[in-house]
Amino acid sequence: MFNHFDDRGQAIMVDVSGKQPTLRTAVAAATVFLKKETLSAIIEGKISKGDVFAVARLAGITAAKKTPELIPLSHPLAIHHAAIEFSTDENKGVITIEATVRAFERTGVEMEAMVSASVAALAIYDMCKGADKGISIGEITLLYKEGGKSGTYRKQQNKSSDSA
Amino acid sequence: MFNHFDDRGQAIMVDVSGKQPTLRTAVAAATVFLKKETLSAIIEGKISKGDVFAVARLAGITAAKKTPELIPLSHPLAIHHAAIEFSTDENKGVITIEATVRAFERTGVEMEAMVSASVAALAIYDMCKGADKGISIGEITLLYKEGGKSGTYRKQQNKSSDSA
Amino acid sequence: MFNHFDDRGQAIMVDVSGKQPTLRTAVAAATVFLKKETLSAIIEGKISKGDVFAVARLAGITAAKKTPELIPLSHPLAIHHAAIEFSTDENKGVITIEATVRAFERTGVEMEAMVSASVAALAIYDMCKGADKGISIGEITLLYKEGGKSGTYRKQQNKSSDSA
Amino acid sequence: MFNHFDDRGQAIMVDVSGKQPTLRTAVAAATVFLKKETLSAIIEGKISKGDVFAVARLAGITAAKKTPELIPLSHPLAIHHAAIEFSTDENKGVITIEATVRAFERTGVEMEAMVSASVAALAIYDMCKGADKGISIGEITLLYKEGGKSGTYRKQQNKSSDSA
Amino acid sequence: MFNHFDDRGQAIMVDVSGKQPTLRTAVAAATVFLKKETLSAIIEGKISKGDVFAVARLAGITAAKKTPELIPLSHPLAIHHAAIEFSTDENKGVITIEATVRAFERTGVEMEAMVSASVAALAIYDMCKGADKGISIGEITLLYKEGGKSGTYRKQQNKSSDSA
Amino acid sequence: MFNHFDDRGQAIMVDVSGKQPTLRTAVAAATVFLKKETLSAIIEGKISKGDVFAVARLAGITAAKKTPELIPLSHPLAIHHAAIEFSTDENKGVITIEATVRAFERTGVEMEAMVSASVAALAIYDMCKGADKGISIGEITLLYKEGGKSGTYRKQQNKSSDSA
Repeated sequence: MFNHFDDRGQAIMVDVSGKQPTLRTAVAAATVFLKKETLSAIIEGKISKGDVFAVARLAGITAAKKTPELIPLSHPLAIHHAAIEFSTDENKGVITIEATVRAFERTGVEMEAMVSASVAALAIYDMCKGADKGISIGEITLLYKEGGKSGTYRKQQNKSSDSA
Repeated sequence: MFNHFDDRGQAIMVDVSGKQPTLRTAVAAATVFLKKETLSAIIEGKISKGDVFAVARLAGITAAKKTPELIPLSHPLAIHHAAIEFSTDENKGVITIEATVRAFERTGVEMEAMVSASVAALAIYDMCKGADKGISIGEITLLYKEGGKSGTYRKQQNKSSDSA
Repeated sequence: MFNHFDDRGQAIMVDVSGKQPTLRTAVAAATVFLKKETLSAIIEGKISKGDVFAVARLAGITAAKKTPELIPLSHPLAIHHAAIEFSTDENKGVITIEATVRAFERTGVEMEAMVSASVAALAIYDMCKGADKGISIGEITLLYKEGGKSGTYRKQQNKSSDSA
Repeated sequence: MFNHFDDRGQAIMVDVSGKQPTLRTAVAAATVFLKKETLSAIIEGKISKGDVFAVARLAGITAAKKTPELIPLSHPLAIHHAAIEFSTDENKGVITIEATVRAFERTGVEMEAMVSASVAALAIYDMCKGADKGISIGEITLLYKEGGKSGTYRKQQNKSSDSA
Repeated sequence: MFNHFDDRGQAIMVDVSGKQPTLRTAVAAATVFLKKETLSAIIEGKISKGDVFAVARLAGITAAKKTPELIPLSHPLAIHHAAIEFSTDENKGVITIEATVRAFERTGVEMEAMVSASVAALAIYDMCKGADKGISIGEITLLYKEGGKSGTYRKQQNKSSDSA
Repeated sequence: MFNHFDDRGQAIMVDVSGKQPTLRTAVAAATVFLKKETLSAIIEGKISKGDVFAVARLAGITAAKKTPELIPLSHPLAIHHAAIEFSTDENKGVITIEATVRAFERTGVEMEAMVSASVAALAIYDMCKGADKGISIGEITLLYKEGGKSGTYRKQQNKSSDSA
């Protein structure tokens, strides 16, 4: 049933050597909840106080490359594109991170996108935790996936798992 | 205002060389939302289908050691203890992960605990994403912190950000 | 004469850029010698005392991905499959580890299989060394290799080097 | 019973934060079995054909630093000394590798020495496997250990596990 | 004569376990030579075109943590502070990078500072090489060192090696 | 204008998934300035005092494989060849390092060659810094590049940037 186990329940790196490489894209999102003041300081302070988003963006992009080291049974992939977008809701104190990863590979890049978004969120947490003890990371989820046999997947926005 | 920037807004690894090492503990939590059937299969299938929690536990513990590589401005720390606990709510389809990290060090181990819980959650996601496309990771938050000048911190359970 | 040196005796990463990728498989074995009681405890204790094989399997699989970092002159390879099998002889106190690695690449995956089997053995050693001071790792050898110009290799079982 | 598991059988990085650092030394050995001609070529060819031992020595020393990445539940240690010695028996076609590691730490450095000797052996294997298909790695074992509560350990030479 | 070799000329990680930790500081400099237009674009373009210095600063700081992986015989050190400063001469097309590293350790942090300055320079090179094919990295040198038995060292500015 | 930023000035790993792999070669040079006595000792002492070049060569080759970890926005590449050449001018006390890297890839290997030459130079620095406090690293520059849309590049020897 689960990925990454053989029929005796033993963990394996599944054999993908027989698959043809295709173009794969994945987009994952992570959210960060923080005080409005903290978020305002991030947005305004970009120059004078330190560019939190610039650090988090690099953390996320470089983490995408570390996915095979972090996720034990994942395949080492040579990713061909990685980008991070931040959007903010100053009234609610929410940062939304979107990580896009693309590769011409034999298996999908969902985990690369998920790791990238997660580590960008963790880096924001790290920079703000001194000023904002209640800061937390919210939903991390796959938004979009393309390429490979299972076809295109697009998350339905009204059926998010944590609204249940 | 933010950790990890100097007074001109430049990113730095803050100087902690003048601090005395003290015993630091941090506990972080992450949640995973998945279908009830998936969760039941994880719980029952521990032997026959593959031990998802055993893989995720190792992923989380080894990730704690990689924190200085993932979080750009964090200090390299020699952690002295790391452990991961899973608890499950089969009716709601929720896995709660608690990661505990301890070290006798000059700076706190919050990020090590946060990274450890996050990567354990990402590893569960990775193993279940084939069977359960809607699986997502929920709140990742610091539960507890001890040691260092700022004293003991314990998260208040009723003010969790994602209940807002 | 030796791989990895040029004709002046200087270490190099040999140029494989002109070779065509082909499907490569390698199987390597490692053995662990331990007390019968220790081995029985591993086999019986899978659930109550800790699943030694599950930890060693993950250690071996993740180590296969680290081969280019460990073996200085080896090429970075994107492996497409990795698996570890354990078999045991309770009367003799012997664990045999077989590591299989596969990749569609320009050069062989023998070192990936050898590293994988070795690190699985080292991880078993690490978990048992407190209870069993005399534990040691025995022969580590290539069993099988397929793909590439030199063709298929299968180790002859009666000509093992350490029986000489 | 096993190191690295708690009393419910869950894998953990054992808490050593309460221990005092002491000076720890460990010496591990690994053997490589190869054809006499191959060994002679290594010994004679040091300058003209490539210095196999120099490469293997660096591989072993740098691998000692990677032990926390390879052995999942091991503690990250700051090692203070690492050295590799090679001795050879040209009549039998045997290379013996001794790896010594020292650190002032809260836990022993046996795994660092075992990993260091193993990776030096694997590097020799890698350089000779083209010329000598039957090359294999023999016993890898702890020879000596000093420091820490369990006191000094010295392997008894006549009770080697693989002579049984 | 050389660091990192024993009296038989064999490479070792020198034993520093008997030394007491002291506060160590090192400052290293690297220079980058580029076209005036490129440098002007970096300085002006900080916001609209991309903050080259922000990326290079993070590259340098994170590289300081990777020193034990890059420099084979160096000791793993837990650095306690890392910072990068850039200064520019727009008329000459020169960027000067100063990397400061500090640690309370048994051995010096010169290599950490040298690696940090070098990798910051390499990251600038990487971002500008498309627009400025003649870009090159100039002198990389130790400016200052403090702590340890050999005392304080300060480079004499008029005796720089590359003015010879 | 700069590589690695999108049109809003945000750092990205540029999308190369649409490009066809071609054979790429890059050659980079680094220089080390040291005292004549130190250089003579390196050249003569190859056997008795320790083979500085052998260590530096391995450091450079293994560093080429670490380029994606060091240069934040670079693509992970599977390099197919890496070699390091040293030439020396005993009268001037100069070591010149040439690093060659080749890969069949979607993007160039300039950074791999630049990192390789730089780390070889840093390793020489590390081994000689005790005996020769004034040692420094000089120009690091791309000598040659082939493959890819921008065609072949060869550095003009008389227009070196630091002679300006």
